[in-house]
Amino acid sequence: MYRVVILGTGNVATHLIQAFEKASNVEVVQVFNRSKKGLESLPFAGNSTTDINHLMEADCYIISVPDDAVQELSESIPFSNRLVVHTSGSVSLNELNSKNRRGVFYPLQTFSKERAVDFSVVPICIEAENSIDLKVLNELASSVSKSVYEVNSEKRKQLHLAAVFVCNFVNHLYQIGFDLSEKNGIPFSILKPLIKETAAKIENASPKEMQTGPAKRNDQNTIEKHLNLLEQPLQKEIYKLLSQSIQETYGREKL
Amino acid sequence: MYRVVILGTGNVATHLIQAFEKASNVEVVQVFNRSKKGLESLPFAGNSTTDINHLMEADCYIISVPDDAVQELSESIPFSNRLVVHTSGSVSLNELNSKNRRGVFYPLQTFSKERAVDFSVVPICIEAENSIDLKVLNELASSVSKSVYEVNSEKRKQLHLAAVFVCNFVNHLYQIGFDLSEKNGIPFSILKPLIKETAAKIENASPKEMQTGPAKRNDQNTIEKHLNLLEQPLQKEIYKLLSQSIQETYGREKL
Repeated sequence: MYRVVILGTGNVATHLIQAFEKASNVEVVQVFNRSKKGLESLPFAGNSTTDINHLMEADCYIISVPDDAVQELSESIPFSNRLVVHTSGSVSLNELNSKNRRGVFYPLQTFSKERAVDFSVVPICIEAENSIDLKVLNELASSVSKSVYEVNSEKRKQLHLAAVFVCNFVNHLYQIGFDLSEKNGIPFSILKPLIKETAAKIENASPKEMQTGPAKRNDQNTIEKHLNLLEQPLQKEIYKLLSQSIQETYGREKL
Repeated sequence: MYRVVILGTGNVATHLIQAFEKASNVEVVQVFNRSKKGLESLPFAGNSTTDINHLMEADCYIISVPDDAVQELSESIPFSNRLVVHTSGSVSLNELNSKNRRGVFYPLQTFSKERAVDFSVVPICIEAENSIDLKVLNELASSVSKSVYEVNSEKRKQLHLAAVFVCNFVNHLYQIGFDLSEKNGIPFSILKPLIKETAAKIENASPKEMQTGPAKRNDQNTIEKHLNLLEQPLQKEIYKLLSQSIQETYGREKL
């Protein structure tokens, strides 16, 4: 049985605690959070503390706090030579204080508190400084997910960057679609089958094969019409830039 | 039984023919295409012709060709006062020649020849010049889909524009994610659960509620790191512009 302490009560921490609670070989022995408020809203009945000096003995300490708070929290840990990891995509292993054995446990998914997540399909990217710690992280990750990858800090940063494009930026395009439809009295729900199919299409084919639309067809007439319909300058800029990028992608192909 | 002639053999035409073939109250009596080649590759065993003067008698003629070819094809039709519709999102009803009764039959979905489509969940936007023709289009649409909407040309253009954002542009962001991961020796498949979840999240919530990521958090530190990682100038521009747009969306909210 692995004993784990979670530091933080954000979206990732909350879903991680719930996933570990279901695992047979992991016990979340404690949750730490600086403020009492975060702890109170947590669906966790076990031991919790707001005092970093009261951290319990464990096999792994998982820091799951905002990126810019990871370093400082790792410094404030009062002990040394234990396995301390963080869950961030863009923070390198070296930003953790070196008095402890360092590692990364990065679940590549978008988490919202209100929404249940099937952790078994969430890829978990792990990294450690030695093979024994890597094995511990591998077993922790495998206890909640079927996809575990060993990814070093350099590659993880690139992966996190790619994730921003396919998740955060994609969601913002959904938002623009939402604005355009609602503004014109069209229910957003009419676009949902299209959104679903666009995501489903790349399950078994590359996005390049699946590209469609006016920019792909070099249909300058429709592109101009669309630019005239757009009233918000930023949306116009986004339309222009993404069309240009699509045209260059397929233009380059032709050469 | 409604008799239908399809003019065109592209992705939309192909899927439409297949959907009508399964419907009990519609018969595709003929497919027209200017070139023999398109007809030969079509999974359709019925009557076909390359001669516009040999079009058969039907209740509805569905023009499904590239946007900029719709007008000319509608002009070349040798008869008048029959129901002639097109399937395009961005072409207005008025672009069809007025010698026939005009209409629109726009299936809001992304079609690829290789990929089967469940037409029953594809929203179909219909428009006609009179209530009798609208009723015909409504019955044709209802024979293949559970979601039929009456949408006029103005609204349909806005809808098509919104569709470019949530489908074509989204797919291009998948493409950038693909490039970034493959370039760094990371399999694109590691991003697929994230892509799936991002699309699934907006089934029951608005995109605005579901936005996450560095731009949403105003995490300027991570944004700078990401911009430094990006080598391709256009990708850098896209990252900047979409981050700015996200920040303005949530900044505006705070005012």
